[in-house]
Amino acid sequence: MHILFCADGTKAAPWVEALRVALPQHDIEDWQPGAPAADHAVVWSPPQQFFDEQPRLKGVFNLGAGVDALLKLRLPPPATVVRIDDGGMAVQMAEFVCHALIRHFRELDAYEDDIQQGKWSYRKPRSRTDFTVGIMGLGVLGQRVAQAVQHFEFPVLGWSRTAKELPGARCFTGAEQFDDFLAATRVLVCLLPLTPETEGIMNARTLARLQPGGYVINVARGGHLVEEDLLPLLANGHLAGATLDVFRTEPLPAGHPFRNHPKITVTPHTSARTLREETVAQIARKLTAFERGEPIAGVVDRERGY
Amino acid sequence: MHILFCADGTKAAPWVEALRVALPQHDIEDWQPGAPAADHAVVWSPPQQFFDEQPRLKGVFNLGAGVDALLKLRLPPPATVVRIDDGGMAVQMAEFVCHALIRHFRELDAYEDDIQQGKWSYRKPRSRTDFTVGIMGLGVLGQRVAQAVQHFEFPVLGWSRTAKELPGARCFTGAEQFDDFLAATRVLVCLLPLTPETEGIMNARTLARLQPGGYVINVARGGHLVEEDLLPLLANGHLAGATLDVFRTEPLPAGHPFRNHPKITVTPHTSARTLREETVAQIARKLTAFERGEPIAGVVDRERGY
Repeated sequence: MHILFCADGTKAAPWVEALRVALPQHDIEDWQPGAPAADHAVVWSPPQQFFDEQPRLKGVFNLGAGVDALLKLRLPPPATVVRIDDGGMAVQMAEFVCHALIRHFRELDAYEDDIQQGKWSYRKPRSRTDFTVGIMGLGVLGQRVAQAVQHFEFPVLGWSRTAKELPGARCFTGAEQFDDFLAATRVLVCLLPLTPETEGIMNARTLARLQPGGYVINVARGGHLVEEDLLPLLANGHLAGATLDVFRTEPLPAGHPFRNHPKITVTPHTSARTLREETVAQIARKLTAFERGEPIAGVVDRERGY
Repeated sequence: MHILFCADGTKAAPWVEALRVALPQHDIEDWQPGAPAADHAVVWSPPQQFFDEQPRLKGVFNLGAGVDALLKLRLPPPATVVRIDDGGMAVQMAEFVCHALIRHFRELDAYEDDIQQGKWSYRKPRSRTDFTVGIMGLGVLGQRVAQAVQHFEFPVLGWSRTAKELPGARCFTGAEQFDDFLAATRVLVCLLPLTPETEGIMNARTLARLQPGGYVINVARGGHLVEEDLLPLLANGHLAGATLDVFRTEPLPAGHPFRNHPKITVTPHTSARTLREETVAQIARKLTAFERGEPIAGVVDRERGY
């Protein structure tokens, strides 16, 4: 089999080397324009030209869990698109979300600021039963985040497009139960795929339905949040703050109102990084199973968008 | 039964009220000098005068897990000293330690600083297998912290005075295994009771044995750390940083070198706060069982010091 690697903004050599070690029976090359037709591709944000030149691809293995950018390209019609379903990302998401949740719940930002200003002050402890965490998106990542949040004894709710179950958590399904989910949620965690249905799902109307003192943690895609709708809800105090790892435009432009906002913690799309070792091992397993005609996890429904 | 409440720096009225609700058959009063002799006391940092005036006390119920300050007083010889063994504190410890661990491991301080300076940068992801967490003290709090750290898939080691077991973790016991424990540890978490044996246990010699890039999280007592020994190890880079919640002198004095140190995160002894509701319920259960002559958890061995 001939496999091409094509990843924007990533040094190709160590990936190609690792893939060659994991799949020694295959011929693996870093893509250059005009390369001969390949059977499979391992990609991250490839240019349209890549797919235009590769009409025979059977499998397109994406180096991340989110395929929204990939599906905006014209792909070879017969190609099966496969995404990473964990690759060490789930535990990273769990720790990133728990860090943001604990930091907010325990007011650690404020305590550290006090210390820096020479103060030594106590705040009234808050009750974790008042901090219901509502998780949107209950795939591999959402389920893992729910487990971690439950480990710290916070009440957890889940919401997803199709009915899902989470042990120990109440789950809501579809558009008709969305408002009830929001009304019961204080800390909203977004782990949805970005699709036409979920674009802008966090907006003035939906965020206003969160409990007073609500908090937003977005670790999915910038497109899920209507950015200009967040600021008035922070200003009028309905929302207490937000931790945002993803943005409509990345890098977040200089002068963007989220930069240096006292109630917004910004991180540079780092909540769950693709780890080479785990990812290469997973792609090698999936590609081998796919070639044998065996079922594999993470096959993208292009119609549905994830 | 006559029960006195005596807590320094705490508003007595809501505690006395909550204790009366939980123990309606008993007579419960806030202590005033000269009060009649009582059967039991619920205390936090009481003055020596309190015990001098109350020689008949059978039970002394401490509002926290640490009894080091209490045992420095002259107590009525027959009194049984009982400490809180959880009271909602274990989950708070778990979240405080995990927050500090994740913040260090994921370099979130540095990412947030970059953003504030207008940067948008990536750091090479670190491998969690390189961040072995060594927990000193394996009581209720240490065990709970170990579980939480394991939930995020960090390797965990434990050390305690007497042999203990932690599921999924290698445990070390006593002075003879202490150096091996330190040598295998990168992130050191102190949850020990403060006793003459553990006073100054974190010092130049022991901290130098941690793995390069070591990190210290002290959530026990300030007396466990020889404060002046920490700074040279941070300066020479052997230690990467520390999160300290407790200090030799609290509040931490103005001008103390830990304040505003770029590698030290200081919080004002807030890692696990005594929560009134849980604590009162636990004291009521223990006091009732104690009166019936039933065994109870948290009885302090005054000789041992915890």
